[in-house]
Amino acid sequence: MFKKILIANRGEIAVRIIRACREMGIETVAVYSTVDKECLHVQMADEAVCIGPASPKDSYLNTKNILSATVLSGAEAIHPGFGFLSENSKFAQMCKECNITFIGPEADIIDKMGNKSNARSMMIEAGVPVVPGSKEPILSDEEALKNAKDIGYPVMIKASAGGGGRGIRIVRNEEELLSSLNTAKTEAKAAFGDDTMYMEKYLENPRHVEIQILADNYGNIVYLGERDCSIQRRNQKVLEEAPCPIMTPELRKKMGEAAIKGAKFVGYKNAGTIEFLLDKNNNFYFMEMNTRIQVEHPITEFVTGIDLIKEQIKIASGEKLSFTQEDIEIKGNAIECRINAEDPEKDFRPSPGKIDGLFVPGGLGVRVDSLLYDGYKIPPNYDSMVAKLVVYGKNREEAINKMRRALGEFLIGGIKTNIDYQFNIINNNEFIKGSYDTGFIARNHK
Amino acid sequence: MFKKILIANRGEIAVRIIRACREMGIETVAVYSTVDKECLHVQMADEAVCIGPASPKDSYLNTKNILSATVLSGAEAIHPGFGFLSENSKFAQMCKECNITFIGPEADIIDKMGNKSNARSMMIEAGVPVVPGSKEPILSDEEALKNAKDIGYPVMIKASAGGGGRGIRIVRNEEELLSSLNTAKTEAKAAFGDDTMYMEKYLENPRHVEIQILADNYGNIVYLGERDCSIQRRNQKVLEEAPCPIMTPELRKKMGEAAIKGAKFVGYKNAGTIEFLLDKNNNFYFMEMNTRIQVEHPITEFVTGIDLIKEQIKIASGEKLSFTQEDIEIKGNAIECRINAEDPEKDFRPSPGKIDGLFVPGGLGVRVDSLLYDGYKIPPNYDSMVAKLVVYGKNREEAINKMRRALGEFLIGGIKTNIDYQFNIINNNEFIKGSYDTGFIARNHK
Repeated sequence: MFKKILIANRGEIAVRIIRACREMGIETVAVYSTVDKECLHVQMADEAVCIGPASPKDSYLNTKNILSATVLSGAEAIHPGFGFLSENSKFAQMCKECNITFIGPEADIIDKMGNKSNARSMMIEAGVPVVPGSKEPILSDEEALKNAKDIGYPVMIKASAGGGGRGIRIVRNEEELLSSLNTAKTEAKAAFGDDTMYMEKYLENPRHVEIQILADNYGNIVYLGERDCSIQRRNQKVLEEAPCPIMTPELRKKMGEAAIKGAKFVGYKNAGTIEFLLDKNNNFYFMEMNTRIQVEHPITEFVTGIDLIKEQIKIASGEKLSFTQEDIEIKGNAIECRINAEDPEKDFRPSPGKIDGLFVPGGLGVRVDSLLYDGYKIPPNYDSMVAKLVVYGKNREEAINKMRRALGEFLIGGIKTNIDYQFNIINNNEFIKGSYDTGFIARNHK
Repeated sequence: MFKKILIANRGEIAVRIIRACREMGIETVAVYSTVDKECLHVQMADEAVCIGPASPKDSYLNTKNILSATVLSGAEAIHPGFGFLSENSKFAQMCKECNITFIGPEADIIDKMGNKSNARSMMIEAGVPVVPGSKEPILSDEEALKNAKDIGYPVMIKASAGGGGRGIRIVRNEEELLSSLNTAKTEAKAAFGDDTMYMEKYLENPRHVEIQILADNYGNIVYLGERDCSIQRRNQKVLEEAPCPIMTPELRKKMGEAAIKGAKFVGYKNAGTIEFLLDKNNNFYFMEMNTRIQVEHPITEFVTGIDLIKEQIKIASGEKLSFTQEDIEIKGNAIECRINAEDPEKDFRPSPGKIDGLFVPGGLGVRVDSLLYDGYKIPPNYDSMVAKLVVYGKNREEAINKMRRALGEFLIGGIKTNIDYQFNIINNNEFIKGSYDTGFIARNHK
């Protein structure tokens, strides 16, 4: 097992990883940008190294500084968390060349799955269902028109290098197609430096259901049930739950086995997530694979009892999985609300600033993963998520009641947050019935 | 189900009960003494009623004021928590006469089990093993000398009305007996207004292992495994864990079934705990029964997944138990550290005062039940316990590592606490091996 790990991330997920390391007896090295000197992960780690100024490209994306900090601190491995360098295959490769373990899959796997068009082709080859559409990049306007006709409208145009909802257009008829393609290309070029586009069938308000997998270095691979992440605002997840309220044991087995088939095909190692779209007839389609830990991993931890961060570290250090598919039982219900420093009344504008008064909910079945402490000054430079409020109940009704109770207790003074917004979701009848889909927020909350 | 419950208690346990009620959709009425106006339970409840000045006898033990508050607020039931009126049979009877449900067993059961000599007699009749000794009160010096000879030294003299370690003497030879009996009687008279004494075999450093039971009004009764509460300082529990580290499935079954036999014999209803002493040869002896919820109930909740406060409320409202003995599975390991506002370096002198800076540990497997918030002024009038830090791990090693990690995160500014003291216990080899007994603190920590 590693003696020391550097965490190439900040805030909540860095704190989460430090906690796992500490419980495993592993020393931790935090990194931070100049504006993050007072951040919780810096205070909690055994050591902390400043890696540059506030701008991510100069600090949390600064591979050279991070690698130097790793070598100088004597850390043997790097945990990248999510975001930042977590899906950067070049960084994973650099780690390898420096003889540092990157806690995640190998560089070539990240590379293969990171390109969405490529990932889609591989999944088709592996026999995993994908949304009907072109598996190849669109090379011309003529091809775009022909493909859309073959697939049938509505279709979705997506940037191969895309993410965070950018470079995506939904096209409902032939008239709109070429102009939408052009604007999407322009957007993709600006955002990702790459305007390669592909096209697929647009599913009207499907559910977003993703399968968590764990694979060790010896060919052992398991799925840990699913997470329903359909509650999204502009393609950003807001609230997640496990299990999916409409899941059946049969469908879970089918989706889980499909996820494993896909992961095995590419020789996947460590923790990963296969995101599927699930339509009204329980057909599911591969959307993308996230080759890293996800924000919403705690709900899977609650319903399976498995610590995913510890498993990531154990796998990366060369340990075998200590359980098989048969050992994994999904029990009870978990819900996560992402608590963001933002103002829902002002179009969710980020609301950084100094925390003035803080009360964190507690008690049975309540878990809070957070970067908050009273007096902490949230800088304006990073993601607005400041805490994850996660609850567990023996059934879905209890989990919802618990989330309502816990949201009611959470007091974050000094800034605006989306706590009331989450409260409205939890109290919405469609949510309570569990019949929601990815159109939920658009229908219910402007 | 009740629509409204009054909580006849304060602080942490009142907060715990309010949380359970809120999750069940039950309105709550808090009560408070004049010094507790700013206490967390008052802020969290739907309503709050002042019931008198700081002195417990004028407020939290003031049955008339509490009953008036109940009637006036329209609450249908009273949850007494632990301490205060929780084992006061007269109060339970008064509730009944006012047509208010007392959430606990009936008055006559509290009465029967509250008298230790009486409880012991009944357990002998029920066939539950008890510590060898006189089941009757000691009526004379001659009788004391004869009984001690029959039982064999060392013997323990205990006040029938005792509690909290007062009115207890260990006698190792005949010479000490009569003088010890006299001082114990004087102490008992002063503390409880009753100097009735009984005598039993003194077990040298046994383990304190208690069985949690739940019984509904229809004769259904289950045991929920055990808690090891051997880590005690002057007969006050400091740290508890579940399961007991040396427990076997066979011994658990034997102790659980003995607990049920005893509880059935007296017609017990609601949640209760049978405390046993466990000797080095796995013989166990009934010590006493607590006819209420206990401080350490969260560790049982962690390893069984059952919410004991909700079960208490459901039973009191007339619901049947929704599970059987076969449904109850003990899984993983839980540890609770009682966090007290006290100064271990000054003989554990209480350390009330204003909280100045607070960081509460979080993350996977960490539960905090607490009355703390930043700026809160702990009054000097009540018990010094201000929080319960409870952790869960899939095995004992993980639970210990998690407690070590969580204790390290817990920051309570402005007052002295026993956090470092708990840290020393968790890091002690005898504790880590699980081989400790009730002599642990005396041996290891002055």
